[in-house]
Amino acid sequence: MATGTLALIGLGISDEKDISLRGLETLKACDVVFAESYTNLMAEGTLDRLGKLSGKKITLLSREQVEGEKEILAAAKTAHVGLLVPGDPLIATTHISLIISAKKAKISVSIVHASSILSAAIAESGLQAYKFGKIITLPHWRDNYKPTSTYGAIVGNKSRGLHTLVFLDIDEKLGPLEAKKALEVLSEIETEKKSKVATPESAAIVLSRVGYPNQKISSGTLAELIAKDLGKPPFILVFPAKLHFIEEEWLSLISPKITQK
Amino acid sequence: MATGTLALIGLGISDEKDISLRGLETLKACDVVFAESYTNLMAEGTLDRLGKLSGKKITLLSREQVEGEKEILAAAKTAHVGLLVPGDPLIATTHISLIISAKKAKISVSIVHASSILSAAIAESGLQAYKFGKIITLPHWRDNYKPTSTYGAIVGNKSRGLHTLVFLDIDEKLGPLEAKKALEVLSEIETEKKSKVATPESAAIVLSRVGYPNQKISSGTLAELIAKDLGKPPFILVFPAKLHFIEEEWLSLISPKITQK
Repeated sequence: MATGTLALIGLGISDEKDISLRGLETLKACDVVFAESYTNLMAEGTLDRLGKLSGKKITLLSREQVEGEKEILAAAKTAHVGLLVPGDPLIATTHISLIISAKKAKISVSIVHASSILSAAIAESGLQAYKFGKIITLPHWRDNYKPTSTYGAIVGNKSRGLHTLVFLDIDEKLGPLEAKKALEVLSEIETEKKSKVATPESAAIVLSRVGYPNQKISSGTLAELIAKDLGKPPFILVFPAKLHFIEEEWLSLISPKITQK
Repeated sequence: MATGTLALIGLGISDEKDISLRGLETLKACDVVFAESYTNLMAEGTLDRLGKLSGKKITLLSREQVEGEKEILAAAKTAHVGLLVPGDPLIATTHISLIISAKKAKISVSIVHASSILSAAIAESGLQAYKFGKIITLPHWRDNYKPTSTYGAIVGNKSRGLHTLVFLDIDEKLGPLEAKKALEVLSEIETEKKSKVATPESAAIVLSRVGYPNQKISSGTLAELIAKDLGKPPFILVFPAKLHFIEEEWLSLISPKITQK
């Protein structure tokens, strides 16, 4: 075994206060600390404040993952290395690749979990977790790239009575996809495909800045939502399937009554 | 508005160190603190240690939710009340009902998120989050209650190329369902339904005590898994659909190579 270690430390969903006590303890015990900010958004100043809280110098890695991976693995051969990751260190294939490479180099790897937008968004939507189907990300549409798979996933889930959680693309150049833009894109697909999941009368929930002090949750028909102030990114959308009466009651408390068949 | 407030504070997936800095800060600012332990398991001594960390008296509520809800709401009319919840305060319908009642009583409600077994289990399985389908819980089988819906969910997900996360029932009297027992129950359904998702050759991942120091992850065929030491509860099972080559490489590092078609 190498004498070093690698800990992927989750930062949670909004700012430095979402790290767990275990995460902060692990961070303080690291010799070398890297951070990445390309798999998720973070509140401004989070890393600076975490650096002060922990007394550690934190090196922010560039997006060029290969470079980052080399640097991390080289350090982790002999030192205790921490990689700070927004949210719960989870989804990104880049992290799985990193861990595989570390294991091959016989570096001991641990993961410190933290709050994740996946569970937080389900919680804040008020809908029942076991009624969600396949999760999907809606990418920015470009002139020559207008995928409709997100719409298809909503149709597929709804036909099985399942809600759909829709993550919105965060692009280096284009920035985070805005909720209204996303609703418009889905409406545009609706006019062509006509499966009745994104008509002006279809219900949706828009979650803005989940876990931030200015979190905002809006629900209503697509027509209503497009006319509303929906808050700021990061956004998540939920397309509900048929609602249980408790889910309906919940939504009626946060917005005009939605009745979703 | 009432002058009191209600904060649902997530404790995260294993022990007191999984609370976030925000969670501990919120807890310290509470006048009255309740805890529940019936929606999830917690490491022994967690609440005692949290009481010491925060300097607060923590009242553990009984399972009789109605009683608990009355007590919580009565206190939250005038005081800052915290309800400590294992994991991310999320899934349980009881919590949604509580929040609805609080909102009706014009009590301001906030949620402090924490690590959730939902995202942590997906992360530790090494499989890609957007490839999971409907989540399901396998209940304890009883003499007159032998549901097969979990098996059906695995079949449905797999037919769409989606992995299945299977939570195992935690019953007050019967305790947490053991992983081996769960695999045997699914094998028994297989012999009847024959959809080839739980044959002795089918692949599965068993996650034991995710986030605990003695976390154990096992993968292999059902026949192999039933013969192995799988660790202790709480358990989560994953039934993978067709694997991406990176997922396959990951699993081959933690167990004999699985090839899942």
